[in-house]
Amino acid sequence: MILAIDIGGTKLAAGLVGHDGTVAEVRRAATPQGADAETLWRALTDLISPLGVSGVEGVGVGCGGPMTWPDGVVSTLNIPGWRGFPLRARLAARFPGLPVRLHNDAICLAVAEHWRGAGRGYGDMLGMVVSTGVGGGLILNGRLVHGRTGNAGHIGHVVVEPEGGPRCGCGGHGCLEAVARGPALAMWALEQGWTPGAASASGGAALPGGATTLVSVGVEDRAVTARGLAADARAGGPVAVRAMRRAGRALGIAIASTTHLCDLDLVTIGGGLSQAGEPLFGPLEEALREHARMEFARRVKVLPAALGQESCLIGAAALLLAGDAYWPT
Amino acid sequence: MILAIDIGGTKLAAGLVGHDGTVAEVRRAATPQGADAETLWRALTDLISPLGVSGVEGVGVGCGGPMTWPDGVVSTLNIPGWRGFPLRARLAARFPGLPVRLHNDAICLAVAEHWRGAGRGYGDMLGMVVSTGVGGGLILNGRLVHGRTGNAGHIGHVVVEPEGGPRCGCGGHGCLEAVARGPALAMWALEQGWTPGAASASGGAALPGGATTLVSVGVEDRAVTARGLAADARAGGPVAVRAMRRAGRALGIAIASTTHLCDLDLVTIGGGLSQAGEPLFGPLEEALREHARMEFARRVKVLPAALGQESCLIGAAALLLAGDAYWPT
Repeated sequence: MILAIDIGGTKLAAGLVGHDGTVAEVRRAATPQGADAETLWRALTDLISPLGVSGVEGVGVGCGGPMTWPDGVVSTLNIPGWRGFPLRARLAARFPGLPVRLHNDAICLAVAEHWRGAGRGYGDMLGMVVSTGVGGGLILNGRLVHGRTGNAGHIGHVVVEPEGGPRCGCGGHGCLEAVARGPALAMWALEQGWTPGAASASGGAALPGGATTLVSVGVEDRAVTARGLAADARAGGPVAVRAMRRAGRALGIAIASTTHLCDLDLVTIGGGLSQAGEPLFGPLEEALREHARMEFARRVKVLPAALGQESCLIGAAALLLAGDAYWPT
Repeated sequence: MILAIDIGGTKLAAGLVGHDGTVAEVRRAATPQGADAETLWRALTDLISPLGVSGVEGVGVGCGGPMTWPDGVVSTLNIPGWRGFPLRARLAARFPGLPVRLHNDAICLAVAEHWRGAGRGYGDMLGMVVSTGVGGGLILNGRLVHGRTGNAGHIGHVVVEPEGGPRCGCGGHGCLEAVARGPALAMWALEQGWTPGAASASGGAALPGGATTLVSVGVEDRAVTARGLAADARAGGPVAVRAMRRAGRALGIAIASTTHLCDLDLVTIGGGLSQAGEPLFGPLEEALREHARMEFARRVKVLPAALGQESCLIGAAALLLAGDAYWPT
């Protein structure tokens, strides 16, 4: 049994994950906004404390980057109170004698899909998440590629609009993330005259996975807005459809490049935007097949991620439960 | 001692490579043009026969792709007489009892740079060749990434001009290779009014590595023309300089994307075009630094390949001499 922790800018989650990947006793809380480092730490320990951790063999953590890795000193972008916070060391002190392993949350999502999701049994895959950001993890020859600094898999910063593309949060421009992240796409749609919810007001129930379509919220509530855009696209709203086409083609181009570089079998895509279905995956496939023409590259498949909101917890646990594949040996 | 073989569309080479990577008794011959499979095979065995192979422990081959891998059935693009030719099996029959290992020639160049060239001691690198084509090999965590079909490292087909870019030989468009391969670049320069040799007629001696500047040849003799363009750029010819800028920026963009995906320390660049020096590497660095802004990506270095024309032989030998790193175990 592993104590798994998922740390993001809007929510914290913790749960117990068994050797077979099943998750029990999940607890969730909002990430305290504007809080200092110790307040954030207390929120996390308060979340964990009620869990029955007596049989726990290790602690696995998925956390938003950037971070130093593998020592797990985190400076999570959307948690300003943690800048250089020694999360791994603090957890090790809190759970003496237990191994603590920490990785980027996008990496954990990719690991989860490979271990227990749509990527099960594949040797070479890229697991992607398209949400507030665009991230990923690379599994090659059945093993997670970490990179020396733990930063391998940053598909969000593959360049898809080299000249004249939008500025990116990384400081560059034309990155996949700058085009396809939910908030950027929602903003683009608003500029093109999108009226959130106009198309899907009666169609929100069509969204899979129990997602809520809160179309009245502002762009600030980014994940929800991207889901709203996805819902509108599914309902046929023309601007939303064009927005999904824009994101889908950018994804297809980046996936073609990655397939050529890494000889991939499979790409999985999770995150709020992936719920758009055909309006996203259609243009994605179109661009991918247009660019990936060599015989070896034609075999690559793109599938929606199979695991839901507990995916990060499952992947974090796999860092320990399947460490031969997912942790440096 | 390894018998190493380098098979390309214009030349064949064979030599003996010692455990320390030194190459002895290299023999070269032109690849018979328009020849059938058995004529090509005889040309190869005639090349090898005079070599003293009594102490040889294995045979390593670098060959132009595509091929099936690791079984080494080759359909080398520029050798039309070999379509589905079982090169590895034929060599195994010719040298009974000896292991025969075969890989893409671009992979062998990358391996050579990592084993004995500019990449020595680096954990995570991409070795590139920019010549008639644009190819490469990925070494991550100190080991060559093969991919399930042996096709990992195809940097030439990273997309750098997604919409409206030039058609590529792979069937796609906007690939790095379609922009930066020598013949495409020379053609582009000719269209822009380049007069081959106008700038470098008196400056050809400035080319390093003993390359000859034969500026009077047609575009058909592609490697030479690319070298001529490189020489003209070094001599300040304005169209040649613009051509190198075009190739350099495309290379920089593809390298930035690869660095983000693979968390690279180093990229090495060999091949005729890399001899352009500053006119190529200046714009390359400019585009790379513009796009690779995250802290981890800023560390990536780009260096000219250190090894010369025997590089492919050295890399082919390393498939056996350092098989733990460069061959699947």
